[in-house]
Amino acid sequence: MSDPRLQTLLDAAPGLRLKTDPADLEHYGRDWTRRWTPAPLAIALPATVEDVQAVVQWANAHRVALVPSGGRTGLSGGAVAANGELVLSLERMNQAIDFNAVDRTLTVQAGMPLEAVHNAAREQGLVYPVDFASRGSCAIGGTIATNAGGIRVIRYGNTREWIAGLKVVTGAGDVLELNRALIKNSSGYDLRHLFIGSEGTLGVVVEATVRLTDPPPPTNVMLLALPSFEVLMQVFAAFRERLQLEAFEFFTDCALQHVLAHGAQKPFDEVHPYYVVTEFAIGDEAKEAAAMAAFEACMEQGWVSDGVISQSDAQAAQLWRLREGITEALARYVPYKNDVSVRISAMPAFLAETQALLGEAYPQFEVVWFGHIGDGNLHINVLKPDGMENADFVTQCEQVTTLLAASLKRHQGSISAEHGIGLVKKGYLESTRSADEIAVMRGIKRVLDPHGLMNPGKLFDT
Amino acid sequence: MSDPRLQTLLDAAPGLRLKTDPADLEHYGRDWTRRWTPAPLAIALPATVEDVQAVVQWANAHRVALVPSGGRTGLSGGAVAANGELVLSLERMNQAIDFNAVDRTLTVQAGMPLEAVHNAAREQGLVYPVDFASRGSCAIGGTIATNAGGIRVIRYGNTREWIAGLKVVTGAGDVLELNRALIKNSSGYDLRHLFIGSEGTLGVVVEATVRLTDPPPPTNVMLLALPSFEVLMQVFAAFRERLQLEAFEFFTDCALQHVLAHGAQKPFDEVHPYYVVTEFAIGDEAKEAAAMAAFEACMEQGWVSDGVISQSDAQAAQLWRLREGITEALARYVPYKNDVSVRISAMPAFLAETQALLGEAYPQFEVVWFGHIGDGNLHINVLKPDGMENADFVTQCEQVTTLLAASLKRHQGSISAEHGIGLVKKGYLESTRSADEIAVMRGIKRVLDPHGLMNPGKLFDT
Repeated sequence: MSDPRLQTLLDAAPGLRLKTDPADLEHYGRDWTRRWTPAPLAIALPATVEDVQAVVQWANAHRVALVPSGGRTGLSGGAVAANGELVLSLERMNQAIDFNAVDRTLTVQAGMPLEAVHNAAREQGLVYPVDFASRGSCAIGGTIATNAGGIRVIRYGNTREWIAGLKVVTGAGDVLELNRALIKNSSGYDLRHLFIGSEGTLGVVVEATVRLTDPPPPTNVMLLALPSFEVLMQVFAAFRERLQLEAFEFFTDCALQHVLAHGAQKPFDEVHPYYVVTEFAIGDEAKEAAAMAAFEACMEQGWVSDGVISQSDAQAAQLWRLREGITEALARYVPYKNDVSVRISAMPAFLAETQALLGEAYPQFEVVWFGHIGDGNLHINVLKPDGMENADFVTQCEQVTTLLAASLKRHQGSISAEHGIGLVKKGYLESTRSADEIAVMRGIKRVLDPHGLMNPGKLFDT
Repeated sequence: MSDPRLQTLLDAAPGLRLKTDPADLEHYGRDWTRRWTPAPLAIALPATVEDVQAVVQWANAHRVALVPSGGRTGLSGGAVAANGELVLSLERMNQAIDFNAVDRTLTVQAGMPLEAVHNAAREQGLVYPVDFASRGSCAIGGTIATNAGGIRVIRYGNTREWIAGLKVVTGAGDVLELNRALIKNSSGYDLRHLFIGSEGTLGVVVEATVRLTDPPPPTNVMLLALPSFEVLMQVFAAFRERLQLEAFEFFTDCALQHVLAHGAQKPFDEVHPYYVVTEFAIGDEAKEAAAMAAFEACMEQGWVSDGVISQSDAQAAQLWRLREGITEALARYVPYKNDVSVRISAMPAFLAETQALLGEAYPQFEVVWFGHIGDGNLHINVLKPDGMENADFVTQCEQVTTLLAASLKRHQGSISAEHGIGLVKKGYLESTRSADEIAVMRGIKRVLDPHGLMNPGKLFDT
């Protein structure tokens, strides 16, 4: 408690818990990127919306920068506090507030982990269908701040589609209740959608009302081995036209090898260069036949070399682990992550071009490809060679990202499909958003955060 | 061409067509409201995005207010030009630009009528599922500006859910391409959603890329007669839990009588106070049995007094006409329209309170109720008695809307579910949006429309 300002903060918000231990500053000052040295002023842990509002008003009075903080599982540095900011952790605000069976909505505090939201929905016989591998650690508020995607987007869309209402504290310290969980509301600008994906730069999400839906039908999971990259979109088309796809995920053998080294079970005797894991609704004979027809059509064309279909939930989980374990298996290599998207129709040309580009650019690095191919979203992870300095590695990777960004601009894609811009992709924002758009974004930030205190330096420089 | 500024406009945009005939000024200066006397400066009809940009830049240079104009089927005065504004009609920009089979998107100019969008989608074996009665006249750009809802929201959501990308000209004269039709794009503030529902106050939508989907399954249409208002939500619940509802629409006998007087065919021998028309997926015996089970459960409970189910497409269209013909049948009474929404769970209490309120408030007026009850959206039309002065009528209606707005505030509802705020509901915006929210909206408008020229006086006063 060395900084005298902190006592004034506690005076302003007596319910607040403050942490200033060096271990806490390090723990709360970083996310899943490992590129910046955490250096926050302190960690503020509010228990109520009123506490959050008091913190933001205090920050305005004292001109202290704030970094809103959920589960810090972000991959773009959006929750990094490396410049003396006060970290505003929603960790204590992690409870479900209300379930409404008629509206099929669940209202939760922003710090609730995604998995806890899943469980609360399931207890009511419903599901919150946004899902991804960090579900146990990430907070629902953070998923809203990045408009998180994940493995079910092809069927259910992004986080944005499931947010019926939001309560936020703006950078000016006002509490706004956005959209009131209404289905129909044409009463001016939809500020709810402005906050979704704003990466904590406009204010803090403190509560959310999410829509729930019926549990999915029974599904099967299929793992396909592909002989080449070029056939990927044909395989996707063959499956999409015959089945209701719940997921369609792609990864390279290089990715698989890392997951196998991490303890997963080998799916095929032979090694294949590319794999797809897909999940689709079954439940009647016609659908099972359609799945087999898709598989056989791909085999006949030579687009698929081998395949395995889940015979049990346990086997389905095993197949999924091959895809979902990638991020964790790569973590120790401090990978440089690209998370890009193009329209599905632009994918073949973009894939070919990118493969050629990276083959030339990264001959010395191991590159792991995977992604949500059915949504046009590709993850390209470059692994740091042992012994290489991290700064050198990042500098080399960024040169390639500059080329990738130019390619994205030509293909009308996005430099961030689902991770957000944060610090990591800030330098490449102009590949995706025009200078005029960025100027509008800056103007909007000034309206909601007049002193520029909300997550400064993230997304763009102000 | 009396105004000397208009020559400078033609110099700035030689491709522009200008209309200044009194009949044109009247025609293009109003929408489906009939409360304001049209008095635009002139009508500008651009043929290209460049023309639109030139008009907006000219307007900024000469400080001329603009009213963007589509099919002018709006019901809230959003497209009224009564104060010497230049009407910017998108009428000539009414073509499909591109269909993409892989992405399942259709890119169109903003002036394309909704029905033409439907037809263009159907030619590709797909559908654009947003639909309502003014489909033949309204422009797709206008439906985006109000985030139009309609009769399929219960199944497909509002316009917002179907807009993959937008091209807009901002009030500052910049052309922005928003979201590039990407499925996943987490690269800063989603300005696309800011423009959807902004009622022409931030800029002009000039092109849109809409998502298409598979044609709906075979459906049946059922008309139900209800003995009282109180059972309405029970009937809805009984059908929703058993069937995939494509529509669930309610109307009073008073509404039906107007449609019958307009030439529709009487559905029942007896008169019932309330009716529901619902459409639901069939296609197999289980679903048909579920529909009969829902009907019989309601009959047993006494919630439904009679019913008819469509035996053919022609009969389905006949049943739909009873609901869809209401707006047209009422038009000659210059109705005062309320278009309100609450959460579905709040509907029973809100309905009871509103019925009591209006019964007391409007004893001398005929009140026609109908709406999209499955979305929490109620239309309350008050009919002007013959011989009454329109100004007196509106004044009396507005006194009641003040009470209704107070009720909506208590029930956390919206003063405009789908028509937009425009001029008609501007005085009641604070029932739905807080003073802080409205201040943020004003600030955002200043960013995108620095001289306050885009549809001034609509939505809020600046």
